[in-house]
Amino acid sequence: MTAADPAGRLAAYQARVEAALEARLPPASELPARLHEAMRYSALGGGKRVRPALLYATGELLGVSGAPLDAAAAAVEMIHVYSLIHDDLPAMDDDDLRRGRLTCHRQFDEATAILAGDALQVLAFASLAEAAAGAAERVAMIALLARASGTQGMAGGQAIDLGAVGRTLSAAEVEQMHLRKTGALIEASVGLAAALAPALAPDRREALGRFAAALGLAFQIVDDILDVEGDPRLLGKTVGADKARGKPTYPAAAGMAAARARATALHADAQAAIAPFGPPAAMLSWLARYIVERSS
Amino acid sequence: MTAADPAGRLAAYQARVEAALEARLPPASELPARLHEAMRYSALGGGKRVRPALLYATGELLGVSGAPLDAAAAAVEMIHVYSLIHDDLPAMDDDDLRRGRLTCHRQFDEATAILAGDALQVLAFASLAEAAAGAAERVAMIALLARASGTQGMAGGQAIDLGAVGRTLSAAEVEQMHLRKTGALIEASVGLAAALAPALAPDRREALGRFAAALGLAFQIVDDILDVEGDPRLLGKTVGADKARGKPTYPAAAGMAAARARATALHADAQAAIAPFGPPAAMLSWLARYIVERSS
Repeated sequence: MTAADPAGRLAAYQARVEAALEARLPPASELPARLHEAMRYSALGGGKRVRPALLYATGELLGVSGAPLDAAAAAVEMIHVYSLIHDDLPAMDDDDLRRGRLTCHRQFDEATAILAGDALQVLAFASLAEAAAGAAERVAMIALLARASGTQGMAGGQAIDLGAVGRTLSAAEVEQMHLRKTGALIEASVGLAAALAPALAPDRREALGRFAAALGLAFQIVDDILDVEGDPRLLGKTVGADKARGKPTYPAAAGMAAARARATALHADAQAAIAPFGPPAAMLSWLARYIVERSS
Repeated sequence: MTAADPAGRLAAYQARVEAALEARLPPASELPARLHEAMRYSALGGGKRVRPALLYATGELLGVSGAPLDAAAAAVEMIHVYSLIHDDLPAMDDDDLRRGRLTCHRQFDEATAILAGDALQVLAFASLAEAAAGAAERVAMIALLARASGTQGMAGGQAIDLGAVGRTLSAAEVEQMHLRKTGALIEASVGLAAALAPALAPDRREALGRFAAALGLAFQIVDDILDVEGDPRLLGKTVGADKARGKPTYPAAAGMAAARARATALHADAQAAIAPFGPPAAMLSWLARYIVERSS
């Protein structure tokens, strides 16, 4: 499969995960209505859906059928959205805007935002447990997503991030933090699709792992760069927020030129890792470039 | 199996889940250390461990082997502990004391408490995904625990609770709230053990479900009663807190005499449900009485 119209395909992935989320989120008409509204407010109708797009593209590359991909795409996006809701809370990053709209706790209230995050996390695991796949594949996906979300992954990265505010980290320390905070879930997006292809050759699985690891780190370094140089109208959030908070970022640790060079090198690593797949990996390759060269 | 020394057996269950938690919680020596410390502070060394005890007693009744019970007991207790950490937050119930010690956010800080709860929730699902049981049983347990924890269960009950502060609920509405907030996880404790016995006859499975549903509601009504009449030294927390906050409770909705009568009737329902199991259910029967007649 080649990617004749990659932008159109990305839009199709975005529509697909939107539908997959809609199908799994409880209706706002059902009790507890305010909690359901908050979950839907944060999960639906926005975002680049980078993680689901990587998951769908990997699944298509590996010939995985559609329905379990939808369950996995919804799950990884729910984990991402829950982490944004909790990271935005006053006790954490204290953000008012997200994707150009009020953050969940500003639109609703703090208690509802905490519960909406909690409930999205559990719904992610429910989505995987109920996926249209064999029990062994479902368990493998759940174990993988749990590892990526826990203290060795996303939650741990956020803890390191909070603990580092105001301190000066080395570029290597910032990378360790980014690998957990952002990289783990990007890796899981590719890994979940690969978990649905149990017959995949080990060297191919390993190559996809290297692709995702490099891309995950590049993604966050680009995020750091955009926080300095980005256009707030495109980003839908305040620029310079990381610096104002004394947050550890790659440009702060290594300088902007080094940050750009590192992102470029990681992008090259990612492309090299999937080169053996040839033209069928064109969509994954396009997504990697899109992620690294994005302006929002 | 009869329960010759039920108090000793309960103590053994408590020691067993403590060991199961210890085995699964990341060490405080490992990064991110503060987050791991907070998880361990809240999860270890305290609590009646009612949910694991019900799970172990049900498992023994059904002849389920030990190792998967430990995974499930750790999981259900992690979900319970995470819910306590988040419920205690300033934006929720704003509690300073829990089990006679400072609450997690008072001992550490709010951000760490939010993340510790998040990470305990994900560790619960990791524990089930890695249980020494067949993939089908693991998926069944994960789906069951997810339903009990989400908006139709525990998180939804807490949302209804918060939304009801200052309003007067009917006894029926309070029951609906309690069934989700507390009942769902008590039911799941019994259900997880039953999920490990796939050959269990449907009528027996259904009887255990009725036992757990009645007991879960009784448990929370007794909690409400103790919040009015309990001894703060035994409870390890402030008495009268629910009333001071305008929280909906069963005694407030129906009066203290009706609350006591309802708890007694539910206890009788629970005992009747497991009567067909005969003497092998003696430990479950003892636990039900212990839960309803407790003073802390």
